[in-house]
Amino acid sequence: MTMPFEKTFPRVAPELLERAWTALQEVLSPGQVRRDEDTRTEYSKDESDSGIYPPDIIVFPESAEQVSAVFKTCQALGVPFTPCGARSGKSGGSLALMGGVAVSLERMNRIRSISVEDLTAVVEPGVITGDLMKAVEEGGLFYPPDPNSWQFCTMGGNIAENAGGPRALKYGVTKDYVIGLEWVLPSGEIIRVGRRTIKGVAGYDLVGLFVGSEGTLGVATEITLQLIPKPRHVMTALVIFDSVLAAARAVTAVLASGVLPRTLELIDDVALKAVDGRGFHFPPGSGSAVIIEVDGSVEEGLLAELARAGEICERQGATQTLVAQNEEQREKLWAARRGVSTALRALKPHKISEDIVVPRSRIPDIIEKLKAMGTELGLMVATYGHAGDGNLHANILYEGPHQRPLVETAIRRMLEMTVQMGGTITGEHGVGHAKRDYLALEQPPEVLALQRRLKAFFDPSGLLNPEKMFPDPKRF
Amino acid sequence: MTMPFEKTFPRVAPELLERAWTALQEVLSPGQVRRDEDTRTEYSKDESDSGIYPPDIIVFPESAEQVSAVFKTCQALGVPFTPCGARSGKSGGSLALMGGVAVSLERMNRIRSISVEDLTAVVEPGVITGDLMKAVEEGGLFYPPDPNSWQFCTMGGNIAENAGGPRALKYGVTKDYVIGLEWVLPSGEIIRVGRRTIKGVAGYDLVGLFVGSEGTLGVATEITLQLIPKPRHVMTALVIFDSVLAAARAVTAVLASGVLPRTLELIDDVALKAVDGRGFHFPPGSGSAVIIEVDGSVEEGLLAELARAGEICERQGATQTLVAQNEEQREKLWAARRGVSTALRALKPHKISEDIVVPRSRIPDIIEKLKAMGTELGLMVATYGHAGDGNLHANILYEGPHQRPLVETAIRRMLEMTVQMGGTITGEHGVGHAKRDYLALEQPPEVLALQRRLKAFFDPSGLLNPEKMFPDPKRF
Repeated sequence: MTMPFEKTFPRVAPELLERAWTALQEVLSPGQVRRDEDTRTEYSKDESDSGIYPPDIIVFPESAEQVSAVFKTCQALGVPFTPCGARSGKSGGSLALMGGVAVSLERMNRIRSISVEDLTAVVEPGVITGDLMKAVEEGGLFYPPDPNSWQFCTMGGNIAENAGGPRALKYGVTKDYVIGLEWVLPSGEIIRVGRRTIKGVAGYDLVGLFVGSEGTLGVATEITLQLIPKPRHVMTALVIFDSVLAAARAVTAVLASGVLPRTLELIDDVALKAVDGRGFHFPPGSGSAVIIEVDGSVEEGLLAELARAGEICERQGATQTLVAQNEEQREKLWAARRGVSTALRALKPHKISEDIVVPRSRIPDIIEKLKAMGTELGLMVATYGHAGDGNLHANILYEGPHQRPLVETAIRRMLEMTVQMGGTITGEHGVGHAKRDYLALEQPPEVLALQRRLKAFFDPSGLLNPEKMFPDPKRF
Repeated sequence: MTMPFEKTFPRVAPELLERAWTALQEVLSPGQVRRDEDTRTEYSKDESDSGIYPPDIIVFPESAEQVSAVFKTCQALGVPFTPCGARSGKSGGSLALMGGVAVSLERMNRIRSISVEDLTAVVEPGVITGDLMKAVEEGGLFYPPDPNSWQFCTMGGNIAENAGGPRALKYGVTKDYVIGLEWVLPSGEIIRVGRRTIKGVAGYDLVGLFVGSEGTLGVATEITLQLIPKPRHVMTALVIFDSVLAAARAVTAVLASGVLPRTLELIDDVALKAVDGRGFHFPPGSGSAVIIEVDGSVEEGLLAELARAGEICERQGATQTLVAQNEEQREKLWAARRGVSTALRALKPHKISEDIVVPRSRIPDIIEKLKAMGTELGLMVATYGHAGDGNLHANILYEGPHQRPLVETAIRRMLEMTVQMGGTITGEHGVGHAKRDYLALEQPPEVLALQRRLKAFFDPSGLLNPEKMFPDPKRF
């Protein structure tokens, strides 16, 4: 069941699993504990393409108390346990690498409250991000973070990974909207951290520490979010360039000019060709594209802002600027952007997606270097994503396992050049399993050691989501 | 030298101080170590009105290595040490309660770099916030956090306290702009955490944990900030009301309408009377005022946005809306707002300023309850501040130490009613010394215990900035 290039980890002894199976049935109802092959297969992978790791038992708690009981049971027995949500993660953060118990939060999927007056919402971790977006927008509010998977990913996963998305450019990422958490610590202890107000500095920022901890320091069982008023007007333009380099230079120039759109997305030539014609047709001869979206509470200024951005793009060689004339056109354009990942998957049997970030001035540089690397190694490289904040999804497409060593070389070189430019190896996908062995490229040993000690502070047994994020000092 | 209501803490033994004095001279130059009475007096207080605590020795390191050497020296000898910046703090966070060594970061005051292309800046902790603002604005960039003391507070202190300010409403607080830190841990170890890119999720968010840790987990010796393009246009209106309750209702109504100004400041009747005529004249008969400021990259939309907010205010009973016609009028208005604290100080010999936050819908409630409490206890209460995000500076003015028990009663009741409304006891000033004994009103014992253990994780000896933030379980 494993692919040839997967890493293998020690599995839990069968007799211990039997004891866990019995003990978990005592703290949960029958329908909440499973170990049939279909369920194990279903929960064995995510969207990271980094291997298949079936958990031995899958549980579906429905309250903080049940999550706590599961954690306590696993700790008492010494069985590894790994939380998961919609398994739409891109770094393997929810994979049960050692088997053991997968703790799915998907049944805790209620929106508990939305306050239009306070501009807040309280949700359970299994709420689908898109459902939250729709619900708050009905009340005139706005939840900005929009990971590509918003139609099916869950808020708990967004918290774990500190999810981003195109709108992060103007509005920030998940952590910028989480103000309070009900949190189950690895020990099973349930605590409440943070607050219900927009502002607050009482005590250490434990919310800040827990958001983005990738399911290694505990899980959220209730999330309090701050919202903003829904921007009343949105305007979207598609700007076409002959070359990706011109597009990248335009992105940098727009930002340096003082315009702050809510999105500045880039699609390179490979990605553009892959997605063209799948529900959206780019103008003939398009070499690369940038999607610029502006928003605000008053319509008057928006067209001027978009025009300004368009002019700057033209000075950088844009050949056409097309403004979406209605919501349908806008949605088609965004569907194309969201469809890039799937379209690229169709080009070759395998695809690895990295989500590097470079300082914004280095966007043209990194794109040029990635192109050159692809040519040199004979690999298809496609680059697209949130260029406005320097966050690019650099994809390597390949034929099969025989190319994997070459792919590994390409990934390492890509991450090395990113770090050399002052960048980071992950902008929004997380380290998880996929990038664990690369984190040392970016962070020095003393910082890795501090984080490992912090993990041990919260989880002395190390049973929660083992073998994630930080390279094993013994193996690295 | 202590006031009658100050708490006293054990002091360091004289022979130990002699050894520290000698050892510190070995790691620093002669002019960097002081213990003369004038310097001790100068470094004995901050802006919190919570007591006078002279440090025994004051050091002025000029590099991360020197800070590290000072920390290591203090740890080796067992002498308490407390970092400080401009001592403009409002919660006593920089007071050397047990004496020992005060570590002033004021000489590390260089802006190391500003990148217009990357929209980032790198500064030392002693840089004055206002100097940073001016420097980046010259390059068309913008550093939004604007604590009231921006003309003299320092960036290190802003990091320690996670400083806010009026613009937090639209732009967030200090932590939203800090992306990387060079940090000296309590042990003296120097680490680099965070990154140089706008986005990034590699590893735990140690930057998030350190910002707002009030000088108890270490100090920043270099700060990397993300900036935004400077909004090209700003428009400011002063809206006058008969009563503070009408003004508070207008604030809530504006936010619920979908307008997001960059500031929504409220000035109550007491504060308005105190500041009226000091460089700025409010219209005759003004009972309360709201300052609304909007900004954007295009002028067209702003007036419409301000007009919309003005209309909503009028529906809530505003009697006049005055729009600043030029930068001079704008600056005068803001000088009046910034002058409220000083003007109130002139009314009575003593003033305690709390910075409570309530969910936004409760702003009218809390203001009404505070007024009633003042009347009942016979104390003058003035409320003003960042009403847009629910963060109010509630001031109690009093005659002298004989009224202190009454003031303590008022503070406790104020904080209790804040917490009962779902609020927090501090929005931007921090807990420090002033609110340490009140934190248990808001946070349960298990969360306090977790934070105390986290402090011990980073600082096992507890010598860094002792007796701060968390109530002593023995004394509470």
